[in-house]
Amino acid sequence: MTFIFRSTLMRNRSFWLPAISAVRTMSSQTGPTPPFSTLSVSRPVNAVTHVELHRPEKRNAMNRAFWSEMVECFNQIALDSECRAVVVSGAGKMFTAGIDLMDIASDVLQPGGDDTARISWNIRRIISKYQETFSVIEKCPKPVVVAVHGACIGGGVDLITACDIRLCTQDAWFQVKEVDIGLAADVGTLQRLPKVIGSRSLVNELALTARKMYSDEAKSCGLVSRVFPDKDAMMAGALELAGEIAGRSPVAVQGTKINLIYSRDHSVAEALDYMATWNMSMLQTDDVMKSAQAAMEKKNPKEVPFSKL
Amino acid sequence: MTFIFRSTLMRNRSFWLPAISAVRTMSSQTGPTPPFSTLSVSRPVNAVTHVELHRPEKRNAMNRAFWSEMVECFNQIALDSECRAVVVSGAGKMFTAGIDLMDIASDVLQPGGDDTARISWNIRRIISKYQETFSVIEKCPKPVVVAVHGACIGGGVDLITACDIRLCTQDAWFQVKEVDIGLAADVGTLQRLPKVIGSRSLVNELALTARKMYSDEAKSCGLVSRVFPDKDAMMAGALELAGEIAGRSPVAVQGTKINLIYSRDHSVAEALDYMATWNMSMLQTDDVMKSAQAAMEKKNPKEVPFSKL
Amino acid sequence: MTFIFRSTLMRNRSFWLPAISAVRTMSSQTGPTPPFSTLSVSRPVNAVTHVELHRPEKRNAMNRAFWSEMVECFNQIALDSECRAVVVSGAGKMFTAGIDLMDIASDVLQPGGDDTARISWNIRRIISKYQETFSVIEKCPKPVVVAVHGACIGGGVDLITACDIRLCTQDAWFQVKEVDIGLAADVGTLQRLPKVIGSRSLVNELALTARKMYSDEAKSCGLVSRVFPDKDAMMAGALELAGEIAGRSPVAVQGTKINLIYSRDHSVAEALDYMATWNMSMLQTDDVMKSAQAAMEKKNPKEVPFSKL
Amino acid sequence: MTFIFRSTLMRNRSFWLPAISAVRTMSSQTGPTPPFSTLSVSRPVNAVTHVELHRPEKRNAMNRAFWSEMVECFNQIALDSECRAVVVSGAGKMFTAGIDLMDIASDVLQPGGDDTARISWNIRRIISKYQETFSVIEKCPKPVVVAVHGACIGGGVDLITACDIRLCTQDAWFQVKEVDIGLAADVGTLQRLPKVIGSRSLVNELALTARKMYSDEAKSCGLVSRVFPDKDAMMAGALELAGEIAGRSPVAVQGTKINLIYSRDHSVAEALDYMATWNMSMLQTDDVMKSAQAAMEKKNPKEVPFSKL
Amino acid sequence: MTFIFRSTLMRNRSFWLPAISAVRTMSSQTGPTPPFSTLSVSRPVNAVTHVELHRPEKRNAMNRAFWSEMVECFNQIALDSECRAVVVSGAGKMFTAGIDLMDIASDVLQPGGDDTARISWNIRRIISKYQETFSVIEKCPKPVVVAVHGACIGGGVDLITACDIRLCTQDAWFQVKEVDIGLAADVGTLQRLPKVIGSRSLVNELALTARKMYSDEAKSCGLVSRVFPDKDAMMAGALELAGEIAGRSPVAVQGTKINLIYSRDHSVAEALDYMATWNMSMLQTDDVMKSAQAAMEKKNPKEVPFSKL
Amino acid sequence: MTFIFRSTLMRNRSFWLPAISAVRTMSSQTGPTPPFSTLSVSRPVNAVTHVELHRPEKRNAMNRAFWSEMVECFNQIALDSECRAVVVSGAGKMFTAGIDLMDIASDVLQPGGDDTARISWNIRRIISKYQETFSVIEKCPKPVVVAVHGACIGGGVDLITACDIRLCTQDAWFQVKEVDIGLAADVGTLQRLPKVIGSRSLVNELALTARKMYSDEAKSCGLVSRVFPDKDAMMAGALELAGEIAGRSPVAVQGTKINLIYSRDHSVAEALDYMATWNMSMLQTDDVMKSAQAAMEKKNPKEVPFSKL
Repeated sequence: MTFIFRSTLMRNRSFWLPAISAVRTMSSQTGPTPPFSTLSVSRPVNAVTHVELHRPEKRNAMNRAFWSEMVECFNQIALDSECRAVVVSGAGKMFTAGIDLMDIASDVLQPGGDDTARISWNIRRIISKYQETFSVIEKCPKPVVVAVHGACIGGGVDLITACDIRLCTQDAWFQVKEVDIGLAADVGTLQRLPKVIGSRSLVNELALTARKMYSDEAKSCGLVSRVFPDKDAMMAGALELAGEIAGRSPVAVQGTKINLIYSRDHSVAEALDYMATWNMSMLQTDDVMKSAQAAMEKKNPKEVPFSKL
Repeated sequence: MTFIFRSTLMRNRSFWLPAISAVRTMSSQTGPTPPFSTLSVSRPVNAVTHVELHRPEKRNAMNRAFWSEMVECFNQIALDSECRAVVVSGAGKMFTAGIDLMDIASDVLQPGGDDTARISWNIRRIISKYQETFSVIEKCPKPVVVAVHGACIGGGVDLITACDIRLCTQDAWFQVKEVDIGLAADVGTLQRLPKVIGSRSLVNELALTARKMYSDEAKSCGLVSRVFPDKDAMMAGALELAGEIAGRSPVAVQGTKINLIYSRDHSVAEALDYMATWNMSMLQTDDVMKSAQAAMEKKNPKEVPFSKL
Repeated sequence: MTFIFRSTLMRNRSFWLPAISAVRTMSSQTGPTPPFSTLSVSRPVNAVTHVELHRPEKRNAMNRAFWSEMVECFNQIALDSECRAVVVSGAGKMFTAGIDLMDIASDVLQPGGDDTARISWNIRRIISKYQETFSVIEKCPKPVVVAVHGACIGGGVDLITACDIRLCTQDAWFQVKEVDIGLAADVGTLQRLPKVIGSRSLVNELALTARKMYSDEAKSCGLVSRVFPDKDAMMAGALELAGEIAGRSPVAVQGTKINLIYSRDHSVAEALDYMATWNMSMLQTDDVMKSAQAAMEKKNPKEVPFSKL
Repeated sequence: MTFIFRSTLMRNRSFWLPAISAVRTMSSQTGPTPPFSTLSVSRPVNAVTHVELHRPEKRNAMNRAFWSEMVECFNQIALDSECRAVVVSGAGKMFTAGIDLMDIASDVLQPGGDDTARISWNIRRIISKYQETFSVIEKCPKPVVVAVHGACIGGGVDLITACDIRLCTQDAWFQVKEVDIGLAADVGTLQRLPKVIGSRSLVNELALTARKMYSDEAKSCGLVSRVFPDKDAMMAGALELAGEIAGRSPVAVQGTKINLIYSRDHSVAEALDYMATWNMSMLQTDDVMKSAQAAMEKKNPKEVPFSKL
Repeated sequence: MTFIFRSTLMRNRSFWLPAISAVRTMSSQTGPTPPFSTLSVSRPVNAVTHVELHRPEKRNAMNRAFWSEMVECFNQIALDSECRAVVVSGAGKMFTAGIDLMDIASDVLQPGGDDTARISWNIRRIISKYQETFSVIEKCPKPVVVAVHGACIGGGVDLITACDIRLCTQDAWFQVKEVDIGLAADVGTLQRLPKVIGSRSLVNELALTARKMYSDEAKSCGLVSRVFPDKDAMMAGALELAGEIAGRSPVAVQGTKINLIYSRDHSVAEALDYMATWNMSMLQTDDVMKSAQAAMEKKNPKEVPFSKL
Repeated sequence: MTFIFRSTLMRNRSFWLPAISAVRTMSSQTGPTPPFSTLSVSRPVNAVTHVELHRPEKRNAMNRAFWSEMVECFNQIALDSECRAVVVSGAGKMFTAGIDLMDIASDVLQPGGDDTARISWNIRRIISKYQETFSVIEKCPKPVVVAVHGACIGGGVDLITACDIRLCTQDAWFQVKEVDIGLAADVGTLQRLPKVIGSRSLVNELALTARKMYSDEAKSCGLVSRVFPDKDAMMAGALELAGEIAGRSPVAVQGTKINLIYSRDHSVAEALDYMATWNMSMLQTDDVMKSAQAAMEKKNPKEVPFSKL
């Protein structure tokens, strides 16, 4: 991990539950974490990495830098054995206004090429690169909790559907915006949203009309699993949830994420076969004995000192 | 398009929102649109085609003519560049009573053939043909909003699960009827219903017991995305919704439908690849610029004059 | 069927609806049905087999015997032409506490083998065998209704997600427990739960944090399709539901189960093709005529005497 | 079947083996069979339909008419219960020179559309239509033997890879021509050729360099299963082979073709499941008894009078 | 392993290469090995199990007993840690005449059932059972070498395509016989043959015409990898080949078989993922060190004492 | 492209056919091209990149540097618009001796980790990384011709099966070596070899026995498409072949490679759909007109000046 955590001091704190102070620390950050210009990365509590979209003055719009930095950031997190769970949120007034069209226009709209085929070739390359920006969240074996307040528009929906657990505030709203600017959403929403919520009629309505969906509907349709009254409460909840995950065996947790994603894309029979092949080694972890002993001693799993993964 | 629209005069109307008068026009139709004998086809508002099941005296039961006419009708719609969205509903007291067993019996129950294998061969051909009756809805790239009032039984459920957005009235009810007549539903319900709503336990219960499901349960399980107090309100809502869709870039809208259906049947990785390959040309549409400009000028996307597709 | 039903006398009863007496009979069983040591098998009403997890003093924990007996039991049920629907429930205070770690430890934790590869090889064989314990429920073509009261923990969730219809009592709760003991759930939960309920965020939260989910959330997310005030009411409801299923054409019902499971694991186009190929023979059943005639005579399908399957 | 067979008189011939006279009859045809302008259709021997590409003066180049007529022709053959096997060959000096670029240019190169996206949309529709021209051969359940003499270029390779059995003359050669005219072959060669022959290195070489492959290499790589010294010998051989197929149970033969194609596109486990579901009805054919009896009586299967399918 | 090996004395022989005497021993067996009535099972050389079809007086025709015994036999072999490779061959004048129609007729042709659907249901169950007879060969992780002399007809082709390596004598011939008796081959040939040889045209010709294929064509098309002048030479070759396999690390060999079969049924990307997951434990075997050391010491891998698997 | 071509002077040569002098130039290279330590990269003729495994004193054994450098090299080639085709060969006495076990042992055999699960986790990461070393060849859209002389062992087979066209010298031999060192081949051979040659029996024999296969068998089974008498002749042939490819439209050639690989991993129907979606833009290339005009003027496609891609 090459980036510097702001809250290094907190790393040695012996308790897990995020205090209000932790949340306050998170809120008081004043800028992105170098070398990033759009992300602020910190470790508010032990083993939990907080990635904050941090262009509040631009409503966290996704500019060219953002698309690269997310990849770099999550590739680092994937290899960071100190991190066992991730919280993603947005700085300022809203989660994100989506793609920063002005900044990105030259990239996407003037892709270069002598004829239609060559222009198409370059556009495809760019789309694939942008898709990777959110796919890294999925490829990262550490579970990612995303906490949404205010608006989550366009690219924001692509982002959150690639996360594992979605939370939001009462004032949050979601909008699959792409049809309003003349294109079919192409960096993940059309692929993941239908597998994330249970009502296909609703998915189609959202994607075809670009209408806003508010927090209550987001909860009842299952897009988010919890709604909080305000951002502070949500951040405390997100950290607690991430802390619960981070406190458990990383072998168990990360194997669970990997196999849940595998299941989504395969038949039950294939996914069972993969699972058995996965666990033939993973069951040999010492974590099973440590966890079982803790259970017998009525200890909280989070008190068990698991080795790094 | 060879069929004659009753509401040709309305085609030049400069406004989009369906007025009550439009809905009244729809209600006042007195028979099917030739050459169809079971369907009434009209264009109540600009760019929206209304397909009405129109055998009200037979509770819109699906007779032999119906199975062919749906294919012809949606193949025409697929090629009709004037149409950008479709509303399907039923004339009379209910949406549909399902298959017209009497009319269809000779076809299905006496398929011809000298021995069991040959009879089976012919039955399979007939089932495949009947499946096509609803698959054309899915293959048609224009989004289809279905509006259900009263009963939606048997074949009606096969039909609506092939549509993109489902609405219903407060008095609507749904019934997967097939087990009651001794057969496993074979023209789409068992294939699409589980991918349309989120509770598999409920899907199984409905399909295995043939019990009725009423509008409130249909809403809470996600089968429909909205419930309206009565048919007039629903038809106004359906037209407004279809109008919202029809007012947006057809390149964006139809690409969205095609890719949403592709996603349902493929892994996320495959669907992302297909999406990138799709959009390498589609992003080169002028509609992006037109839409972006309208957005900057705070115009409604529906005011943008998109070219035909 | 080699096992002896306790309620043989009931087999000839001419009515279907389960009376309270039937439920009482079920409750009064005092032990497992030989040769089983963990399961009590009976036929409380016509054509419905009741399989009860029966180690109440051990909270129906799944010991080594259980894993084998389930396979034997459901293989028998699959071939038992007298049985057309199954109810699964738990004896005593709760549905099940999940895997009996103590009993099973020697099997899983000391699998034998000279080196890591050989140990892994043996673990994989064991996991595959344990997966089969629940997959037999799915392979059995008779629909399985599971009725959960009290706790349903760990292996219990693996079990119920392999059943077709899920019911529970008001006091029921569910827990994907595996991460708490240091392992990724490997006998079905991670593969089936996401295909059983509509909210992926919730699935991930449950599997990654091992938190309890109570009956109201289980209902709203679609895990169960009905909640009952207490166990007696639930068992009466389960028997009635199973009776409804058992009363219909077994050709229709079992073909429906097989094709619903096929649909889950295939694209719509593939599943439609399979369905047409399935029904090319199954539509030739006499049950269609019998059912149609009953419908015309306004009879309940359950009064129709269908041949054995 | 609406088209008129030239050789109706031959239909009642009691023997199967194609005589030289039959081949001569085939050779003496002087023009296409109305309503076709590019195909000559006849029945040289019982139950075998001969489809001849018939624009000899244009080297059987595939013009606009051809692309439609093939679909119409094979759809008729699929339903023609008199036909049990098909032979495809080319009239004149060669099998086919491939696509008739001049005739087809306006269709493909000026597809219409106001912007790149709309042009792309129309091109995709055209390609899909052209793909169907060869896919109908595969969807037709009657086996298709193709007999190639002289050149088989471009679209010709697309055509023959969709047939079931390939024969050629000593002087035949094959060329995947598309890269030479600046495009990736898009109507079947890239999809089917790799599944038709065993050497991937050779497939790639042919498709990437557009080099010619002669009959000896075509035989050794498995593209064709037999090479004949000249066209007359090949046509006699093709008719004999088709006659062998046509003489066997159509239930067996057509079920074999359908399942062989299914196997190509599925895993072994899935294909076995489909096969069992297919044969659960097809094994009930009388043809099994008729064939078994003929076998016991040492009769040739071709002497058994099977019912139409 | 419950069956008794005839050649127990040979088990301790310190050398590997099968001597002519071993082959002679194999030939001198005079009957099936109890409890089998159709199979003779022995261990001619260390770690190699020889399964001989043993109904020579009936040309090794596959009767009802055979279909069950193969399953039992290969399930035992799968668990027999003494066995590391298998040779399958036929006693008497030929490999096998295929299904014993007389013996099996009552099973398949009179499957029971009150109507067409119920008969179909039972036929499907029987076909699935018969398919399993050959699928066990594939599921058994020990490589299976099949050695064919004389005729290999019908069910024989189903059998050998499920084996891993195919050898034959100069006088061998193969025949996909099923169309001659009025049915589509349904226990494996249509599913496996196209994935076993490279020429699809040839596969189709064989399956659609039931013509014989002789050893030279079988070699050139890749069905067999070696042809031997006579049975003695072939058996010596088969034992040598099996001995080569049996002498290598069972972790390596059996992992290779499992992953080769996985690859056949999956995309390259999926198969690579599975392979990595497989080897994350299997690479931890001591066999790697033992093998590497042997290699450095220029020893034959077969001299390395690997632990049982 | 950041690496320096040795043969820059040759870039402007106006002719295509590789002269003996070009081959000589290639042979006279004396070391790897910085920054690479194991690869020598040059451009012997226009638009063709030559990648030479260059550790001749170590028999081109694949050391740690190699595994990274291949990825870097082919990622550069993928983006290098000057390059349209690639030739891969080996410097010195043989193509490659495979993995450099000594150099790589610490990486693979001591992967780090506190328990079996953590060691497994790290091994999986390493295998995935190594798999990528050859998958980049496949992901690179420029066709890759591989030219093998002398030995091609272990990792060498993994490498060549990921290339598009395989050539070899008369003295070449191939060996799937992995079982000899106690492991199942895990970086591509088991996944790609069965899809590269047509005889599954042979694939299994090679992979399970580690026996050598010589050039004549490699040719007859289709592993290589041509055999040359010696290395000079082969290199001249490889350059000519690559030149033929490089001289054609890059839109056509690279689209062909991408779709051929897509076809391998999908059903025909899916691959046709992808192809149509691909070509809806690619057919709009100017290359079609340029190529068609050249064809009419009887020019060689290689004389057409295509724009960069």
